[in-house]
Amino acid sequence: MKTRPGNLRVKLPVFVFVLQVIIVALYVAFVTYDEHADARFQTNRTNPMDNAVYRDYPFFTDIQVMIFLGFGCLLAFFRLYGFGGMVFNFLTATFAIQWAILVQGYFQFSHEGKIHLGVVNLINAEFACAVVLISFGAVLGKTSPLQLLVMALLEVPVFAVTEWAVLKYLKINDAGGSILIHLFACYFGLGVTFVLYRPSLNEGHAKENTSYQSDILALMGTLFLWVFWPSFNSALTLKGDDQHRAILHTFIGLSASTLTAFALSAMLNKNGKLTLADIQNVTLAGGVTVGASVDMMITPAAAYALGMMGCTACMLGYKYLSPFLAQHCRIQDQCGIHNLHGLTGLISCAAGICAILMASEDVYGPSFYEIFAHRAPVDGDPKLQELQMLIPGLKPGLGRTAREQALFQVAAVLSTIGVSALGGILTGFVLKLPYLAPPSDEMCFDDDLFIEVPPDYDSPLGLKSTVTTDD
Amino acid sequence: MKTRPGNLRVKLPVFVFVLQVIIVALYVAFVTYDEHADARFQTNRTNPMDNAVYRDYPFFTDIQVMIFLGFGCLLAFFRLYGFGGMVFNFLTATFAIQWAILVQGYFQFSHEGKIHLGVVNLINAEFACAVVLISFGAVLGKTSPLQLLVMALLEVPVFAVTEWAVLKYLKINDAGGSILIHLFACYFGLGVTFVLYRPSLNEGHAKENTSYQSDILALMGTLFLWVFWPSFNSALTLKGDDQHRAILHTFIGLSASTLTAFALSAMLNKNGKLTLADIQNVTLAGGVTVGASVDMMITPAAAYALGMMGCTACMLGYKYLSPFLAQHCRIQDQCGIHNLHGLTGLISCAAGICAILMASEDVYGPSFYEIFAHRAPVDGDPKLQELQMLIPGLKPGLGRTAREQALFQVAAVLSTIGVSALGGILTGFVLKLPYLAPPSDEMCFDDDLFIEVPPDYDSPLGLKSTVTTDD
Amino acid sequence: MKTRPGNLRVKLPVFVFVLQVIIVALYVAFVTYDEHADARFQTNRTNPMDNAVYRDYPFFTDIQVMIFLGFGCLLAFFRLYGFGGMVFNFLTATFAIQWAILVQGYFQFSHEGKIHLGVVNLINAEFACAVVLISFGAVLGKTSPLQLLVMALLEVPVFAVTEWAVLKYLKINDAGGSILIHLFACYFGLGVTFVLYRPSLNEGHAKENTSYQSDILALMGTLFLWVFWPSFNSALTLKGDDQHRAILHTFIGLSASTLTAFALSAMLNKNGKLTLADIQNVTLAGGVTVGASVDMMITPAAAYALGMMGCTACMLGYKYLSPFLAQHCRIQDQCGIHNLHGLTGLISCAAGICAILMASEDVYGPSFYEIFAHRAPVDGDPKLQELQMLIPGLKPGLGRTAREQALFQVAAVLSTIGVSALGGILTGFVLKLPYLAPPSDEMCFDDDLFIEVPPDYDSPLGLKSTVTTDD
Repeated sequence: MKTRPGNLRVKLPVFVFVLQVIIVALYVAFVTYDEHADARFQTNRTNPMDNAVYRDYPFFTDIQVMIFLGFGCLLAFFRLYGFGGMVFNFLTATFAIQWAILVQGYFQFSHEGKIHLGVVNLINAEFACAVVLISFGAVLGKTSPLQLLVMALLEVPVFAVTEWAVLKYLKINDAGGSILIHLFACYFGLGVTFVLYRPSLNEGHAKENTSYQSDILALMGTLFLWVFWPSFNSALTLKGDDQHRAILHTFIGLSASTLTAFALSAMLNKNGKLTLADIQNVTLAGGVTVGASVDMMITPAAAYALGMMGCTACMLGYKYLSPFLAQHCRIQDQCGIHNLHGLTGLISCAAGICAILMASEDVYGPSFYEIFAHRAPVDGDPKLQELQMLIPGLKPGLGRTAREQALFQVAAVLSTIGVSALGGILTGFVLKLPYLAPPSDEMCFDDDLFIEVPPDYDSPLGLKSTVTTDD
Repeated sequence: MKTRPGNLRVKLPVFVFVLQVIIVALYVAFVTYDEHADARFQTNRTNPMDNAVYRDYPFFTDIQVMIFLGFGCLLAFFRLYGFGGMVFNFLTATFAIQWAILVQGYFQFSHEGKIHLGVVNLINAEFACAVVLISFGAVLGKTSPLQLLVMALLEVPVFAVTEWAVLKYLKINDAGGSILIHLFACYFGLGVTFVLYRPSLNEGHAKENTSYQSDILALMGTLFLWVFWPSFNSALTLKGDDQHRAILHTFIGLSASTLTAFALSAMLNKNGKLTLADIQNVTLAGGVTVGASVDMMITPAAAYALGMMGCTACMLGYKYLSPFLAQHCRIQDQCGIHNLHGLTGLISCAAGICAILMASEDVYGPSFYEIFAHRAPVDGDPKLQELQMLIPGLKPGLGRTAREQALFQVAAVLSTIGVSALGGILTGFVLKLPYLAPPSDEMCFDDDLFIEVPPDYDSPLGLKSTVTTDD
Repeated sequence: MKTRPGNLRVKLPVFVFVLQVIIVALYVAFVTYDEHADARFQTNRTNPMDNAVYRDYPFFTDIQVMIFLGFGCLLAFFRLYGFGGMVFNFLTATFAIQWAILVQGYFQFSHEGKIHLGVVNLINAEFACAVVLISFGAVLGKTSPLQLLVMALLEVPVFAVTEWAVLKYLKINDAGGSILIHLFACYFGLGVTFVLYRPSLNEGHAKENTSYQSDILALMGTLFLWVFWPSFNSALTLKGDDQHRAILHTFIGLSASTLTAFALSAMLNKNGKLTLADIQNVTLAGGVTVGASVDMMITPAAAYALGMMGCTACMLGYKYLSPFLAQHCRIQDQCGIHNLHGLTGLISCAAGICAILMASEDVYGPSFYEIFAHRAPVDGDPKLQELQMLIPGLKPGLGRTAREQALFQVAAVLSTIGVSALGGILTGFVLKLPYLAPPSDEMCFDDDLFIEVPPDYDSPLGLKSTVTTDD
């Protein structure tokens, strides 16, 4: 007897349990506590309130809300795919974090053969998870949970290697993750969706639309992301004034892009009405656009201007570029991640480079060499000792000039885009394996394929609403 | 060709972009970082963890949730105006905060011609924003987004001037903002709605009702506000025991008013059932009522009693006063802000005055003169030096007696009500300008006027429910 | 004239106001501020930022979200009982906290006849409230608000006495509350539902099902609980590395159980689809299972394995045990609390005992005697002085061996189960008093009995969906 397409009864448990056994084995073999979580490091000189957990945990909970409720609700915007959006987000995020703890841990947090675990690793792992979820946006509704798990399984290591290589060898400034998170996630996702191209979807799909309730749910997701985005952009900056500026710039950038999004939404709609999809997505553009320079002394005005610029690019992308890519480039970018993370990420990188070129000790004071750590004098340089009088604990750098640092930023952008696009394309081919139960074209954007639905699912109203009136 | 009424295609973009250009120009000219966000102030004596961001940011994120998710969901209680409630709240809040950063900054945070920006300014600006959103409650569903932006444009400066004048010249105690936030917002909003009076709405409106989902959404908004209200009331108190008491009193007041609201809701309903609108609104009365005395040593029992009293006044207001005001005073108070913020605010002020009259050094210890800063001895008084031995850093005050302080509180209440009502009335006249695209009576409480709606909007069910069964 | 069944017009107000008068009187007589909230303790040696509020408040707000939004949304999963789930949760929680402040205060926080109040009491009271809400899960939809208030009125004192006796006399390790919170709540709730047995409900009930929107709402509740659970499990641990580990273990346990829940859900469904009820409930099992050993050095791998085990037990419980208990033991456990809190709690206790038996000073260092405080040497033992050189402030213990401590843990489990089951049964008999307005069998799971509902409630769609297709 042939099983129903979409039947996960054997595949999903087998796949998940194999993964979990491997993960437990790796945790047993390699994972231990870091010094802030290990009881042995508690001595008579330890003040419990100095534990790193009190610096990191508030940012961690904010990012948790973004990942599970923010992304979850925002991805539930389809009328008949609300369960899918929230539930597959939950599954994928949970797996990606567990996996990233191991993979990032191997590259960044291992000493003497052990991965040292603290809340700071969880924050890093949630960033890796955000990368996977952004890429998920490109293929939302067109992938099985198995495909999503495999995507996470492959994307996390490619991301972790890229992150490690860029930070170790290119040594860039990217506090908000515009390059490493947003550009990587975007081009990886585009690579995947390029390979998973479904020609029939370009002719419209009866289930590819929203309902009143799903739109409100997605708007709540947007608001969760909006509200906590300053924590996302500042979680891993230097503590003190750097983190303070990152929060200010993110808030200002977001709030500028929100106003612009409302204006452009009315302007580009033929009836002069607001379009909810714009409010749900384009308002967030400012958070990405300030990313690469978020902790620098760019002035609040520049953060405001960046928010406006990012929003404009993002909006025009949704209006003109996304349809073009779908029609002519085989790139069906379901949630428009290229607009919200790609275009804005590129603007952010450009702005970061400008900020690096214009930065000077006059504006930053001696802490200039902390923020631009690679421009600090090399070990042995007498200038370093001078600076260490002013900022104790300043580490020797590479003595880079502004122009050199800018070139390394460019190199990081180009290599990140290259690696992620290639990684995405290869991952796409893996996802085409028939074992992974991809939905048929007809069953895309439909909860009923993989999830038990209640009786009021796709009710008469729902059927009626398959006649879309969207422009 | 005449454009459709409600067409925002030209008006909204023009208005928003003009505002944004002005705002950017003002940010360029006047806004800089405060000492906790400026890299130049980083020296070898700076401990990054002492940065003010770590004191302020947790309260800021809580208030963010209240403003964007709390107000947003609570204002989405109409059946056909869920988009409008959430989306216009988002737009208005975002603009009000940007604008308040500048206007409050000019009055309260400028030194040497520059506004010094830190997270503490954002908290203050979110309070100004809360003022606008409360006033918005009076005219919900009857105003275009343009009108709301103009309202914010005018209300923020009137608020900022009042706040500055009251704090600088009258020097009052109002930790939870009962006078400056709640009373101001209430009477401003009533002033606006008085001018925007629409006689036909007194005869009922087919769209002025709720649905099952919109009621649940609004209840979530209530819960967001309820949960984080202690942060709202304590965000700007003195640090330490003051902030601690503000949290305790707010929680106790809210929880007392919640129980009372359930009891009264069943009692005043002719079927002995609970009414959801009561649960959504009246449960919150305690948070306002404890406001003016929230950081004083009023005892937990008094906070409990205040919660019960405020709740009772608020509930009776909804039941008897609001209909009276609508029928006989041209005041159509859509969300009943006069009950939730006006009546409770007045009780709160009275309680604050009692607390001031009864406060003594016996109960507070020497920190009495920190909490009631204006009662501290004047500079040169030997008593001041004595106190400074006990509380280092105590600032000289004005040597006011309890009775004097109480009179200044009364003066602040009266002048705040006067200024806000007048400001609201004048703002109302500006909002009547035809350029601002007010909705027709028939299109009030209807998303379809300004926002693209999905096909299931106002479905057969919806039509059926125009026959209201509410009592 | 006879009143409608379910009419609360007299009963609820009378009951609530009597309670509130008693509560105010008790607050007046017994409640004062603790030293961190009392202005008199402010001296020139006090640093305001050292106030306990800054240690406790962030955890308190997280738990607030769990109690009011997490439980609230999760309990709203029935199609026609969304108002009931959220609103009765709100009512019950608010009352339980007020009441627990007094009752727990009497047993744990009173000195010289006064209950000393700070945010830490609120956290404790919210734990007592969580106990009541978990028990509520067993009788959801089958109880009137009056019954719920009476249940809270009785359960809180039984819980407070048990907690006090276990902590004072048995002196156990239970940082995450697996014994005192989860097992107590579970067996109390089962006791209540045993007495309130309704045979007709075993034959199915037309309203005992979900809708698309109610399922999404409940899923949001799950996510709120999931995201903040680390704060719940770590709120009252020792500060520093203990709290850090509690956060890590809870996160790892939850994320392991989430993956396992997805796998088992597909495996046990006859169509190989995911079942939303599993995602809503079973994913949370890991949070309970790590509880009793959450702050110990169990290794991350063990936390992962515990998450998987707890999840498996919980899932099998839902599938096989709950139907059995309902059919053969008169135990109708509406939300399956025996699976999510009972079975997992037992596993957690067993794991805690193993962790105690295997703990050694080698692994923990000298802080071993802080975490296992009762194993510290008794006063006068020279070993104690030695240890106090390493860990200043270490308090003398009872000199228990590992095996002794393990036996006390077992004693605590057995006595907690016994007391709670007995308390639940007795409470069940009180709840049968006719004055308390229990709903008839037919009106179970129906908002319309106690709450005014909007016109679209139980619309044609709703009626249609009474034909359940669930397996």
